[in-house]
Amino acid sequence: MKILILGGDGYLGWPTAMSFAKKNHEVLVVDNYLRRNIARETRSEALIPMPNLHDRVGIFYQATGKTIGVEIADCKDYMLLSRIVRDFKPDTVVHYAEQPSGPYSMTDYQSARLTFDNNLTVTFNTIWAILEEVPDCHLVKLGTMGEYGTPNIDIEEGWLEIEHKGRKDRFLYPRQAGSLYHTTKVLDTDLLWFYVRTYGMRVTDLMQGPVYGLSTAESDLDERLLPNFHYDDIFGTVVNRFLVQAIAGVPLTVYGKGGQTRGYLNLKDTLQCVELATLNPVEKGDLRILNQLTEQFTVNELAEKTQRVGNQLGLNVQVKSVKNPRKEAEDHYYNTQHSGLLDLGLKPHYLTDEVMEEMLKTVMKYKDRIDEKMILPRVKWS
Amino acid sequence: MKILILGGDGYLGWPTAMSFAKKNHEVLVVDNYLRRNIARETRSEALIPMPNLHDRVGIFYQATGKTIGVEIADCKDYMLLSRIVRDFKPDTVVHYAEQPSGPYSMTDYQSARLTFDNNLTVTFNTIWAILEEVPDCHLVKLGTMGEYGTPNIDIEEGWLEIEHKGRKDRFLYPRQAGSLYHTTKVLDTDLLWFYVRTYGMRVTDLMQGPVYGLSTAESDLDERLLPNFHYDDIFGTVVNRFLVQAIAGVPLTVYGKGGQTRGYLNLKDTLQCVELATLNPVEKGDLRILNQLTEQFTVNELAEKTQRVGNQLGLNVQVKSVKNPRKEAEDHYYNTQHSGLLDLGLKPHYLTDEVMEEMLKTVMKYKDRIDEKMILPRVKWS
Repeated sequence: MKILILGGDGYLGWPTAMSFAKKNHEVLVVDNYLRRNIARETRSEALIPMPNLHDRVGIFYQATGKTIGVEIADCKDYMLLSRIVRDFKPDTVVHYAEQPSGPYSMTDYQSARLTFDNNLTVTFNTIWAILEEVPDCHLVKLGTMGEYGTPNIDIEEGWLEIEHKGRKDRFLYPRQAGSLYHTTKVLDTDLLWFYVRTYGMRVTDLMQGPVYGLSTAESDLDERLLPNFHYDDIFGTVVNRFLVQAIAGVPLTVYGKGGQTRGYLNLKDTLQCVELATLNPVEKGDLRILNQLTEQFTVNELAEKTQRVGNQLGLNVQVKSVKNPRKEAEDHYYNTQHSGLLDLGLKPHYLTDEVMEEMLKTVMKYKDRIDEKMILPRVKWS
Repeated sequence: MKILILGGDGYLGWPTAMSFAKKNHEVLVVDNYLRRNIARETRSEALIPMPNLHDRVGIFYQATGKTIGVEIADCKDYMLLSRIVRDFKPDTVVHYAEQPSGPYSMTDYQSARLTFDNNLTVTFNTIWAILEEVPDCHLVKLGTMGEYGTPNIDIEEGWLEIEHKGRKDRFLYPRQAGSLYHTTKVLDTDLLWFYVRTYGMRVTDLMQGPVYGLSTAESDLDERLLPNFHYDDIFGTVVNRFLVQAIAGVPLTVYGKGGQTRGYLNLKDTLQCVELATLNPVEKGDLRILNQLTEQFTVNELAEKTQRVGNQLGLNVQVKSVKNPRKEAEDHYYNTQHSGLLDLGLKPHYLTDEVMEEMLKTVMKYKDRIDEKMILPRVKWS
């Protein structure tokens, strides 16, 4: 299969590219290094050294004999994107090309504007490049569980049948997100649904929870193939941040009461989910929404787990509540449906003590590179 | 009150500016002539000659002795918009500054992109200019009833309490619009709701139905103050289009079966609604959504009414169904709640035979300027 990966240099994009290429798909990645640039500007650089995309592809070729195509390009440029799509003629486009940090999107006008403009323009251009160049192509888009927010009713898988005053209809599940970044994904979904029902596109929107982990089958071949591992307050997801704090010997920073519940998954399962979606495309005119997570945890549960396993490894892990920089419920109802990917064949990797231990051991190798100043929250929701 | 009107040259913006200025509010209008430029490029120019904004303001001053400030500026330019807001310090911003044509937004990539970029960027910049410069200012935003689409359940006023599996929560009413233009307003509302609940803005989002009419208290003072009256397939709303077809002696073009039902209102009532919203601002952190319409009609009912009144005036009005260029339900359930503006004091002007007759007589004066080629649908939803 021909697979075009937009945002192919990212935490998820690069492992996805390797995973598909290893399985003999023809893979082309596009990236404009937006995340690397923002990380440098905000002093949020990744823990583990990252070769640039061309070098990554070279190292991957040495390790596997498989090739991955690279285009350094900004998908906001429609002429460029449509030329790439026209020349490559993908069967599937996997769209990760978004500014992915909630805190960054809440910093100021400039960062909000960059997030809003980048994310919506790239989604808009991707839709049109597919419509104009490869209308049968399946778009696999990364959404986020954050689109739903924390409603007081069960979170269904994308859609909700509503009965009101004795009549019924089916709608997109109502969504209200907690940051501007997450809100751009709400808007992405609205936009995709418009073009799906009006022009008959085929789209899978994966509502993904926070991802943790470093190891994938391909990155295990050569440490230089490891994904971008961010542990800062801007790009680091909570599990990754706790791992680094445990190793650095600074308290794990729980925001507020720590009752915030989310659905999590292992990076290996992101790869599985994206592959399952890709190999099982939907019909034209279908918007399939799948909730991409395997387990629910509160922040406190994650902190306790990190502390317990860390202490077993001889670390002295402390947990400390800090004032919540975000505007969010700290204690709320949360119950998500997520059977769609299991039905497609997902075999989850759960967050066991062994998985936690393995991640801690990997991070330990890079202990000297940790900059503790990058972990405490720098952006407030106000 | 100091009122800043974005899109103050438009069909609604200009009458709104005059109406507020006549009542001794301090009014500043901003416009970049986007609609005039698109109308010229798409051969969709208005029926009645329109002086430019500076001339309009001069004529209005001669007629009333009241002044209106003018800035010819593109609200997509944040530095410019925030400078205007900082200098003027409005109590209310009325935001009409969007590309308002469904068909135009469905033409091709360029027109879709222009619509998407213009509408979302202007809303985004307006939000931020208020947050940064006048955080207590009340934003009155023009949405559209088209955001709701044609659901099979009653359309409530912006919000819906949902009971699901024994639990309850309240959400924005689910919305799925019929054109990209209408979809940009869905996204606007999502974005406004995010900034309202996160930063405590105060916003009224007016979900307006199609507007008809030409006459307002101020435009009656001098014919050169009439609003932009579009009758073409791109910018003309259905009532205005039918009026011109009746006068031109060409059949009224009903799209498909003609069972499409919408909520309509008279231009005079738009002015009342915007004034009522402005004089009754909401609290900080409130997003008030009001459905702005006074009557529901099917397209067939509007055609029959135009035909009957036209024939009474000695016209020979024919009605003809044409293939529907749009993708929409032609026969559907439609029942809208719209008590909010009545509760605030709205006194509706209904579409009586007398109102229809008066509009036909006004259009008749401009019969020689009608270009029939502009009326038949040129844009298809495919």
